[in-house]
Amino acid sequence: MASLRTMFACERLAPLLSDDAMLAAMLRFEAALARAQADCGLVPRDAAGAIDAVCDELATDPLRLAAAFDPPALAREARRAGTLALPFVTRLTAAVAARSPEAARHVHVGATSQDVIESAAMLLAREGARALGDMLTELGNAVAALADAHRDTPITGRTLLQAAAPVSFGWKAAGWLDQLARARALLARTVTEQAVLQFGGAAGTLAALGDAAPQVVRALSDSLGLPAPATSWHAGRDRIARIGAELAMVCGAAARIGRDISLLMQTEIAEAFEPVAEGRGGSSAMPHKRNPVGAMLALEAGYRAPQLAAILTAQLATEHERGLGNWQNGFFVLADLFDVAGSAVESMLEVVAGLRIDAGRMSANLERTGGFVYAEAVTLALAGQLGRPAAATLVERICREALTDSRPLREALAADSEVGALLSGAALDALFTPQQYLTGATAMLEAVLADWRAQGPID
Amino acid sequence: MASLRTMFACERLAPLLSDDAMLAAMLRFEAALARAQADCGLVPRDAAGAIDAVCDELATDPLRLAAAFDPPALAREARRAGTLALPFVTRLTAAVAARSPEAARHVHVGATSQDVIESAAMLLAREGARALGDMLTELGNAVAALADAHRDTPITGRTLLQAAAPVSFGWKAAGWLDQLARARALLARTVTEQAVLQFGGAAGTLAALGDAAPQVVRALSDSLGLPAPATSWHAGRDRIARIGAELAMVCGAAARIGRDISLLMQTEIAEAFEPVAEGRGGSSAMPHKRNPVGAMLALEAGYRAPQLAAILTAQLATEHERGLGNWQNGFFVLADLFDVAGSAVESMLEVVAGLRIDAGRMSANLERTGGFVYAEAVTLALAGQLGRPAAATLVERICREALTDSRPLREALAADSEVGALLSGAALDALFTPQQYLTGATAMLEAVLADWRAQGPID
Amino acid sequence: MASLRTMFACERLAPLLSDDAMLAAMLRFEAALARAQADCGLVPRDAAGAIDAVCDELATDPLRLAAAFDPPALAREARRAGTLALPFVTRLTAAVAARSPEAARHVHVGATSQDVIESAAMLLAREGARALGDMLTELGNAVAALADAHRDTPITGRTLLQAAAPVSFGWKAAGWLDQLARARALLARTVTEQAVLQFGGAAGTLAALGDAAPQVVRALSDSLGLPAPATSWHAGRDRIARIGAELAMVCGAAARIGRDISLLMQTEIAEAFEPVAEGRGGSSAMPHKRNPVGAMLALEAGYRAPQLAAILTAQLATEHERGLGNWQNGFFVLADLFDVAGSAVESMLEVVAGLRIDAGRMSANLERTGGFVYAEAVTLALAGQLGRPAAATLVERICREALTDSRPLREALAADSEVGALLSGAALDALFTPQQYLTGATAMLEAVLADWRAQGPID
Amino acid sequence: MASLRTMFACERLAPLLSDDAMLAAMLRFEAALARAQADCGLVPRDAAGAIDAVCDELATDPLRLAAAFDPPALAREARRAGTLALPFVTRLTAAVAARSPEAARHVHVGATSQDVIESAAMLLAREGARALGDMLTELGNAVAALADAHRDTPITGRTLLQAAAPVSFGWKAAGWLDQLARARALLARTVTEQAVLQFGGAAGTLAALGDAAPQVVRALSDSLGLPAPATSWHAGRDRIARIGAELAMVCGAAARIGRDISLLMQTEIAEAFEPVAEGRGGSSAMPHKRNPVGAMLALEAGYRAPQLAAILTAQLATEHERGLGNWQNGFFVLADLFDVAGSAVESMLEVVAGLRIDAGRMSANLERTGGFVYAEAVTLALAGQLGRPAAATLVERICREALTDSRPLREALAADSEVGALLSGAALDALFTPQQYLTGATAMLEAVLADWRAQGPID
Repeated sequence: MASLRTMFACERLAPLLSDDAMLAAMLRFEAALARAQADCGLVPRDAAGAIDAVCDELATDPLRLAAAFDPPALAREARRAGTLALPFVTRLTAAVAARSPEAARHVHVGATSQDVIESAAMLLAREGARALGDMLTELGNAVAALADAHRDTPITGRTLLQAAAPVSFGWKAAGWLDQLARARALLARTVTEQAVLQFGGAAGTLAALGDAAPQVVRALSDSLGLPAPATSWHAGRDRIARIGAELAMVCGAAARIGRDISLLMQTEIAEAFEPVAEGRGGSSAMPHKRNPVGAMLALEAGYRAPQLAAILTAQLATEHERGLGNWQNGFFVLADLFDVAGSAVESMLEVVAGLRIDAGRMSANLERTGGFVYAEAVTLALAGQLGRPAAATLVERICREALTDSRPLREALAADSEVGALLSGAALDALFTPQQYLTGATAMLEAVLADWRAQGPID
Repeated sequence: MASLRTMFACERLAPLLSDDAMLAAMLRFEAALARAQADCGLVPRDAAGAIDAVCDELATDPLRLAAAFDPPALAREARRAGTLALPFVTRLTAAVAARSPEAARHVHVGATSQDVIESAAMLLAREGARALGDMLTELGNAVAALADAHRDTPITGRTLLQAAAPVSFGWKAAGWLDQLARARALLARTVTEQAVLQFGGAAGTLAALGDAAPQVVRALSDSLGLPAPATSWHAGRDRIARIGAELAMVCGAAARIGRDISLLMQTEIAEAFEPVAEGRGGSSAMPHKRNPVGAMLALEAGYRAPQLAAILTAQLATEHERGLGNWQNGFFVLADLFDVAGSAVESMLEVVAGLRIDAGRMSANLERTGGFVYAEAVTLALAGQLGRPAAATLVERICREALTDSRPLREALAADSEVGALLSGAALDALFTPQQYLTGATAMLEAVLADWRAQGPID
Repeated sequence: MASLRTMFACERLAPLLSDDAMLAAMLRFEAALARAQADCGLVPRDAAGAIDAVCDELATDPLRLAAAFDPPALAREARRAGTLALPFVTRLTAAVAARSPEAARHVHVGATSQDVIESAAMLLAREGARALGDMLTELGNAVAALADAHRDTPITGRTLLQAAAPVSFGWKAAGWLDQLARARALLARTVTEQAVLQFGGAAGTLAALGDAAPQVVRALSDSLGLPAPATSWHAGRDRIARIGAELAMVCGAAARIGRDISLLMQTEIAEAFEPVAEGRGGSSAMPHKRNPVGAMLALEAGYRAPQLAAILTAQLATEHERGLGNWQNGFFVLADLFDVAGSAVESMLEVVAGLRIDAGRMSANLERTGGFVYAEAVTLALAGQLGRPAAATLVERICREALTDSRPLREALAADSEVGALLSGAALDALFTPQQYLTGATAMLEAVLADWRAQGPID
Repeated sequence: MASLRTMFACERLAPLLSDDAMLAAMLRFEAALARAQADCGLVPRDAAGAIDAVCDELATDPLRLAAAFDPPALAREARRAGTLALPFVTRLTAAVAARSPEAARHVHVGATSQDVIESAAMLLAREGARALGDMLTELGNAVAALADAHRDTPITGRTLLQAAAPVSFGWKAAGWLDQLARARALLARTVTEQAVLQFGGAAGTLAALGDAAPQVVRALSDSLGLPAPATSWHAGRDRIARIGAELAMVCGAAARIGRDISLLMQTEIAEAFEPVAEGRGGSSAMPHKRNPVGAMLALEAGYRAPQLAAILTAQLATEHERGLGNWQNGFFVLADLFDVAGSAVESMLEVVAGLRIDAGRMSANLERTGGFVYAEAVTLALAGQLGRPAAATLVERICREALTDSRPLREALAADSEVGALLSGAALDALFTPQQYLTGATAMLEAVLADWRAQGPID
């Protein structure tokens, strides 16, 4: 279901994660390898030039790429060979030979299958992380705008799905932003640190290159823009697993926003709504439905990504210098993780940018809680005189009675003589306003916004 | 990487899991729905006939299917709509309208998106399970043949990766078969029981059909060959999760075989080998390598499938009558699980059918253990006279000394006066033959083979 | 945090999953083994009698058990030995020797560590499944009573967290029951089929028992009440993984109920409530809070169990005759799964048995949807004359306008001339009642209840 | 199985992860809260002093702690309450009241359950990470010593479980070290960054503290040594999930070493061995067995940890200001992850520190490969003259023939006229020595060692 499943994929990242993108990245590796070896005198300049030219032509012309590699056929051969690299190198060698038989003798020399596949995957990871980072910046900015605009919009704070105490919608959005900021910064840092050159040759020691090894590594690393690690890491699967884990964190950050919005959008709550547009969120059986479609996509990602990430984390106990079955799926599982993260962020970006807020309903819902959301404030006001335990016991009793009698808390408190002796009516009134609750929220919101602005661009 | 990833996909199952297969199954549902409603007088016969005819033409002609549904475009629209069904129904309605505007009024009436998507997924699951069941039968038969042929081929039994005691290779294969037999039977039973009709309309109660609901359900169920459950199960995600769990078990059964073969194929052990063929298992850096490629594919599946299955199992706590984000990915995650299971079984089928056994090497490796694999036999022989604790202590001491001196156990035992007093040289010799170890193994092997033969065809 | 974590554990199952329970089960195995070997003439009757007596005394007297085995010390020794069985057998042998030095010579003969550990685990699984089955029966009965009592209680059916169409609360509960019934039946069947005797000796072939093997197996199997499988299954990890998977399904079935109740209990919806009791569901900061504590416990289980189950499923590709690290944790991971499933079912049992339903609020919330939940009914009524596509388009337009104008759908429809021409006011009124929606729901509810009653006791 | 399961737990970390440790950390939070509020004038100095004194006495005296909190009873009450904090605060308040009724009125004021539980968990995480970091330093140093000592010890490099090319054992160990170094540094950094103060009060906004909130936060943060984040993070589950993910990486790094050692220790390979000690790695059925017990423990951790980590990662899509069921298990799941990581590192530390290397056997096994491990070197030597494709084809043919004839590659090459024309016998001899293969390996090894030494102490 190659096409149908793309309903859960990211349109913006798709071109970076395609068959063509992977083949182009593999071609970049082979071209850079030839050039690096030419720099070290291991391959004739002319041969490297020819390899480079052929790789470049194939990588930049989709039709020639398709003709040379025929991805479905390549995959069939790769299945038999146990690796994409073997049939890839065979076909590339043929393409180079068509231009220069001499140059064809120097294709892929000194490298092993895993080198080209994983260096290519790391190139894609860097490009994917850059594009996803941009999307996260856009999403973060949209959320920051919400936070900024709604710093004084009261909304019911809800814990364990129960009305708890008033907060501001801006502060709620700041909570989303705080997590998004971590997701953006740590994905970028993780990819910067972990997406490095894979190059070790047959058993990982670059034995084939002899003394020239360090020089070739340096040239190859520079050319690809992939840092050179201290050692090849064919058996060090933590690098890719860490990138996968951070992609799951991105999905989680987006899914959390989707969860909140879908809950706020419940018919009975109706405090916020996904944007309406042609073809968005309808139902085949219920014409009136406005489904939280964007939230659905983000939540889907939130369910799927942790398990995809666990594929990679559960493959760390590999065997010797190159494992059996525990790295080979890495390149496409990582692509799936970028895809699902992109899907989540893309969908939330559209939702947050177009989110409709019903501030009146937020206030009304807060009112309709019967004032119980102010119980903590009352408890604290009484605690000053009674101590916290006695105050809590007292307020809890009055709450219970008010709930039983379906009577607003404000009224029940006023009717209680013990409370009356400690708090005047005016003092009670002052406690029953959401604004008095928002000082701490606003300070936190400011701190989160300041951190976001300070984080600056992610490169 | 729609094409490249198919190196880890099953060629035999691919046509059953394609975009076209999904669309065709959705068309089968819509056609059957129209016919079922016609049977109950809810839709005019002619209209149902027209819908049926159009669905059938589209489902059986890939070019018309592509023209009508354009899967990539459909997926884009589905992403906005939050469901494949909405744009699918729109396009189907248009195709029906082109033949009969009147009939177009009766497309998809009374059904909801999830009905068509999940009934289609269950149709695919049934076909997938049948095809995978056939492959498991073939694999089981190949393993049974191995077990049968090698009932008297001694091999080192290995526990915790250490030589333990002699077993037969046939018995080892019988262990694989025992697990495969469970995987085959339980996948079949699970799909038979759980892949049932999904049909509930808007909120799951078939309210739109009024009193005719049971009759339509029956007709639809009969027509599709999907059993009618007691109730719609939009929010009952365990059905699909159970199918997923059994597909992970299939992968595990294949991966276990792959693990054993890859270990036996280690250069230093060299007791069994995957078949050699052009393009199979080479290395781009090491021309002599014969990699266990089939084992790699099965092991890859063994790493990936449990996490894919966990996606489904972790989505059970859905919301109300239809969840948000926790069923929508089901159809393609299930397809992925069939795919990965097919990949594992297909690869093991080729490996087991062509497995090369080096019985001489098996014996030689057994010999080369220095006789320590017979330590249990010696202990038991002595236990009769000394009791197990004293016998174990004695043999353990002699083993330790023999290991320190790099001396065969047979020799060390003979040199020990305490042992000499209890066991004659001839008695010792009798203990140091693998054959005396195989009685129990052979009985188990026969029982497993008998069970396999008795299991009969899976339908 | 051995004690604190038990806040997420099941009190009823706890005694079945304790250190003592495990040791007692291991003792049952060793006693039965001695007796079985005595039956076959491999061990003197007197010795078997002594072993049996010592095992029985230890297993039934917690103080003596603690004195003989000292679980913390045993665990430390087991950590060094790599197996619980070695220090266990050493200590048991000493205890037997204290009574009969002769009998001590016959302890554990012919068995391997994994035999005693896994047969004991399977004994616990059978007892655990029986107790959990009883709890599931109670929970199912409580849910069935709800379904029965509320077959005519209308409630908003909600899909994707949006009001969709009226259903009955009884039908909603029937959906929970349908899934619980599967969970109960399939857990019982899986344990019956998969919790079998593990007995193979050193390398799994019972070589030590020679020709007596089948007879000993039979006697041991009878004595323990664990069926004898065709072959030992030290490397067949699917058995335990399947039990684990079904325990995750139990958690999911309970968590789904918890999810629904927690959503219904939201302050703004307030249609159902967990029972109130001293010490239940309070908040340390908010005295009025009545938290859905039971739902929380079930949902916690729903998050945790799938991953615990995945530990077992991801260990199938074991090595040779006994794996390294991929079965050793099985006994306590399985115990954790019983524990978490028990926690989920126990908490839901208390919640469902004491659930407070506010039928008035259910109706009121249904009313407050502005009649949009009847949109499907209107569409279908119009579809008879306009065809579904035109009817859907028409109703969708009117819905959109009504939503924009915050006007009830009933009113907007009455004001529309196109609708007026097709449906009289009386016809419209008839469509706007929940009762007309419940025919199908009630039929499904009856079918589910009938299935539940027919399922009968699980043994 | 609270005790028995500790065979898979870490003895060194155990005291940091106990019931007592958790309660003590919760007491530290409450004491610091009272002091911080006293600093801000919200609580009388005397009262704060009394709370502080009681907390300190309880936290430092296990007997008084047990008497005051009775962990099993506390857990039972916590199960009803839905949180550990409620019964904890009740008991603490009683203990304080026994000393000063006035002070008791000021216990836990302004904080919510999650504040005390998660700040305590973060305190444990910091202490756990410090202790685990020390263990990782010890393990890294032991591995570094191996790498240093064996830089010139040739061993067969193995890829896909096949002999590939010679490497040095030192370089192999450097690969382990490279991954361990990342695990150590990134665990430390993640805990430093993510284990921060949790403090938000009822709905997370510290409303109860009014304008004093920032000052209290600062004082509390300083007192506990937990950094103050920009905002409370009750719903920001990524922090704890990231710590969990890094603990899984630690397990993976240890499990990889365990995997390699267990493979090297196979009877037929016998190149390295776990240390022998009384009670280590025996078998109840096979007295001669020396099981790789340490490797088993590390591998067990490698199987278990990724799924435990996934529990946390799959809980990110929480609800509103505090979720239901998706954070409550965090404190003990995190403790389990420290425990399993400690188990893995502790076991590998003992193994690596006492590892017995058989360098002779390493060389002998390399010899016994028939020289095929030098095939890459030969190919490269010929590639200079023939080009890589032709050289590869030629060597591949000769390899195949040699394998078929069971003839050493050196001999087969010498007999080939085409090769003979290009390479002299002396040139061939030079290619067939492991030393010529190790230049690149040694350079990588040096770089890894230098990085390790430069990493310096982790605080």
